[in-house]
Amino acid sequence: MARWDPGTEERLTKAALELYGEHGYDNVTVTQIAERAGITRRSYFRYFPDKREVLFAGSERLPVAVAEAVLAADVTAAPLPAVLDAVGKVGGQLVELIEGSGARRAVIESSVELQERERTKFAAVTTAIRDALQQRGVEPQQARLVAQIAVVVFQNAFDQWLDGGGKHDFGSCLDEVSASLRATVAGPRRR
Amino acid sequence: MARWDPGTEERLTKAALELYGEHGYDNVTVTQIAERAGITRRSYFRYFPDKREVLFAGSERLPVAVAEAVLAADVTAAPLPAVLDAVGKVGGQLVELIEGSGARRAVIESSVELQERERTKFAAVTTAIRDALQQRGVEPQQARLVAQIAVVVFQNAFDQWLDGGGKHDFGSCLDEVSASLRATVAGPRRR
Repeated sequence: MARWDPGTEERLTKAALELYGEHGYDNVTVTQIAERAGITRRSYFRYFPDKREVLFAGSERLPVAVAEAVLAADVTAAPLPAVLDAVGKVGGQLVELIEGSGARRAVIESSVELQERERTKFAAVTTAIRDALQQRGVEPQQARLVAQIAVVVFQNAFDQWLDGGGKHDFGSCLDEVSASLRATVAGPRRR
Repeated sequence: MARWDPGTEERLTKAALELYGEHGYDNVTVTQIAERAGITRRSYFRYFPDKREVLFAGSERLPVAVAEAVLAADVTAAPLPAVLDAVGKVGGQLVELIEGSGARRAVIESSVELQERERTKFAAVTTAIRDALQQRGVEPQQARLVAQIAVVVFQNAFDQWLDGGGKHDFGSCLDEVSASLRATVAGPRRR
């Protein structure tokens, strides 16, 4: 019996993205994905529990990586810039590793179920940042707000990176969104 | 056969919150909720499709109300303060109407499924604000960022209001979170 193999995981993700693009997420089965990747349906379940999770391969590592980066940063002076630095580093590594993100985004936008799963992923990142900030002594309400804002900036930066076809540097996308955020928030006070 | 009745809807929500608090969300059935509210299981389904949606009664009106408030606001000068004004008005009306929000929050925090549903609710509010801003001429990326930030502020203000046992004015909770946001974002630039 074959063992777990990262090459197979990648082939499954690629096959799933192709099939979802061709037939729509709802119309594709695990059997079809397995077949296109050249493995059996039974082997598929050694990699993913269902046809949804193939689109979230490795996403359980994201909160961990972000939390580590936040714990390594100096958050005492100004938590948000420190956290943005940290997510910028993780994001920069992420965009080097991933392929087919544009196709993935299109599939996710096509399905309510996948949008929910994507929000769950980012909620886990938010919680990880919040907890890491609290470990570093930031008080709870502030930690939560900084984590939420940082994740909003990260999401928008990632979308801008995708909009640019992955050609721009992730760090400059993050800087651009950070600048928009500052301009947005620095406006006149609430009347 | 009895018609739909807002008093019954309220009784169902109250009964559900009580039962979820007593036995845990996973251990309560629709039959139990219906019984406690003094109606049949069959009548329950005229009000809600399942035991989850009873906790989201009326939440489909939230995006509509927020969008209307944004469309009525002057967003051209500074979108974020205008949107915060708009969500402040809606939030102020909301906290007058609702009861048992503290109990509701505790139940939602106890269940992954309910947390997902709650995120979906706020995603709908975010989309409604974004679309209203675009209708008012704000460009798409800016509209999305403002909507996301406004919803984060709204959520945190609502939590602070709950933390205070519903005794504070919602507007002052919103002002407090807005001030934290400005302080958080106005820190030194990303290094």
